[in-house]
Amino acid sequence: MHYKKIGKQTVSFNSPPVILSAASVVGPMEGQGPLADKFDIVMQDTLDGEQTWEKCESKMLKDAVKQAIAMAKLKDSDIDVLLAGDLLNQLTSSNYAARDLPVPLIGLFGACSTMALGLATGSILIDGGFARKVVAAASSHHDTAERQYRYPTELGVQRPMSAQWTVTGAGAAVLADQGFGVKVTHATLGKVIDLGESDPGNMGAAMAPAVTDTIITHFRDLAVEPDEYDLIITGDLGQVGTSITRDLLARAGYKIKYYTDCGILIYDPSQDTHAGGSGCGCSAVVINGYVLKELMAGRLKKVLFVGSGALLSPTFNQQGESIPSIGHAVVLEGPV
Amino acid sequence: MHYKKIGKQTVSFNSPPVILSAASVVGPMEGQGPLADKFDIVMQDTLDGEQTWEKCESKMLKDAVKQAIAMAKLKDSDIDVLLAGDLLNQLTSSNYAARDLPVPLIGLFGACSTMALGLATGSILIDGGFARKVVAAASSHHDTAERQYRYPTELGVQRPMSAQWTVTGAGAAVLADQGFGVKVTHATLGKVIDLGESDPGNMGAAMAPAVTDTIITHFRDLAVEPDEYDLIITGDLGQVGTSITRDLLARAGYKIKYYTDCGILIYDPSQDTHAGGSGCGCSAVVINGYVLKELMAGRLKKVLFVGSGALLSPTFNQQGESIPSIGHAVVLEGPV
Repeated sequence: MHYKKIGKQTVSFNSPPVILSAASVVGPMEGQGPLADKFDIVMQDTLDGEQTWEKCESKMLKDAVKQAIAMAKLKDSDIDVLLAGDLLNQLTSSNYAARDLPVPLIGLFGACSTMALGLATGSILIDGGFARKVVAAASSHHDTAERQYRYPTELGVQRPMSAQWTVTGAGAAVLADQGFGVKVTHATLGKVIDLGESDPGNMGAAMAPAVTDTIITHFRDLAVEPDEYDLIITGDLGQVGTSITRDLLARAGYKIKYYTDCGILIYDPSQDTHAGGSGCGCSAVVINGYVLKELMAGRLKKVLFVGSGALLSPTFNQQGESIPSIGHAVVLEGPV
Repeated sequence: MHYKKIGKQTVSFNSPPVILSAASVVGPMEGQGPLADKFDIVMQDTLDGEQTWEKCESKMLKDAVKQAIAMAKLKDSDIDVLLAGDLLNQLTSSNYAARDLPVPLIGLFGACSTMALGLATGSILIDGGFARKVVAAASSHHDTAERQYRYPTELGVQRPMSAQWTVTGAGAAVLADQGFGVKVTHATLGKVIDLGESDPGNMGAAMAPAVTDTIITHFRDLAVEPDEYDLIITGDLGQVGTSITRDLLARAGYKIKYYTDCGILIYDPSQDTHAGGSGCGCSAVVINGYVLKELMAGRLKKVLFVGSGALLSPTFNQQGESIPSIGHAVVLEGPV
């Protein structure tokens, strides 16, 4: 058998899985941001007819999955495996969404790196011959995340300028062993890295070293230079983390011209989110709603998407621990 | 390429991954149960020198991973991927354990089905050619689970007789593309099923329908009868869930002679755990500590291990929701 691992952490797909369709569902605030017209569904409010924010998050995720399946002109039962994750404790959104889908579930937790981890693991399933069609999906909800990770939402606690705003949104992509679309050609799975940042109001700083490690490992594993890609997009480091990542990469000798972050793209500075967006839903909607469309249109040819996850545990944080982080990367190549 | 999916939810491994080694770490109570002499490390108390139960759980998981790697006569850096999960919110035990290991992490959440999900996903990585050596690991801790899922531990709330006792323990297995050991020949990934049970004190009843669905789907996908296996072991339904599963299988026409459950094996009735053991650590230590040894010794030849997960969300439960569940199965074949 052909061995598909290259270097330390990267795998190469012999028959690159194809993204047949991609769907995004966002909240009202994301629907007023710079990418507003890229999203498939914009909710009128953050409950969308549900009684709680948590139930709304789970519904968003299910809606994104169903929308992606419909866009690929498939039925739910055509999907071999659903790979899903979210920010709620016990992957609640994913588990309750999967309850209404007749599809086996692999529950993934990578915090905000989940969309990238799902694309990577889903591609492994397909390229390995274990599935013909999978859905990778992820979600987050501003209000569920705030009250779970930080303070009761009603308390109105002042957020520091380094804080990011958890995106209310869900994204889903249908991956298949054949068809026309953006291809996933490589994946670099990340290690957990923790340089001691312990401020839940500065997750970008916590994530930057892990993301940088994954990017550099990816370059070295494949012996490529940054200009191999016409865009490197992290998701979601926000302003602070992006700036640190740029510095760390420069110190390692990598000057990256075309670099941005999902957390920076999703909101306009006038929306006063401070350091930008975050949450599993951030890269899920920016990649599925925007980046894949640019690749399909030929405006981008080859993108390195590095999902970044701050593996913050409020319990461990209160017990004096810092915030370990992770970055998972996938290479997305346009069909044109 | 040879397509490895058979039927609806089962995959077959062309070159079945080999379990090179398996390690188990347990707490003092598990160390006094019927399987006491099967475990590699028995902790003296439930803190093991750590300041909190949560830190102890993470240490157990790391110890199990390191022990398994050492037993396989490998170095940490020989491992391509760690697949780990636990019961703590945000997979805290896994993330903080992985922080001290130079190995990429795929974080999995399947509640108590995590060990089976890790063996299945790890086998997919190896048989697909994406890794040569992976570690699959899972953990739980009685005290961290009780206070996270139910009541503050100090409160001394009366437990119903249908309640299971979360195992304090961690297990890890090294899977490789070659070597001598038990082989993973097939995996059946489970769907999320919820028939409306909403009592966190009766998780066995919540899990039984999902586990039964996976077992029947497995039989049908591979066109095998129960006597294909000299043991079918679920993990961990406890007394109540096992009895319901046996009934559901009988109603579907399957009479299973050699059937037991990790949650029943791990404690003696005199230990007063009520319905038996549960938690990711339960099947992790029973499979890694006991079942694999029986397979190695030839006392068992072919085992169907069905990990069972109650995807309980305390938040959703308080919002009136029932408990969705899942079962993931792997076939373990002895080398003799």
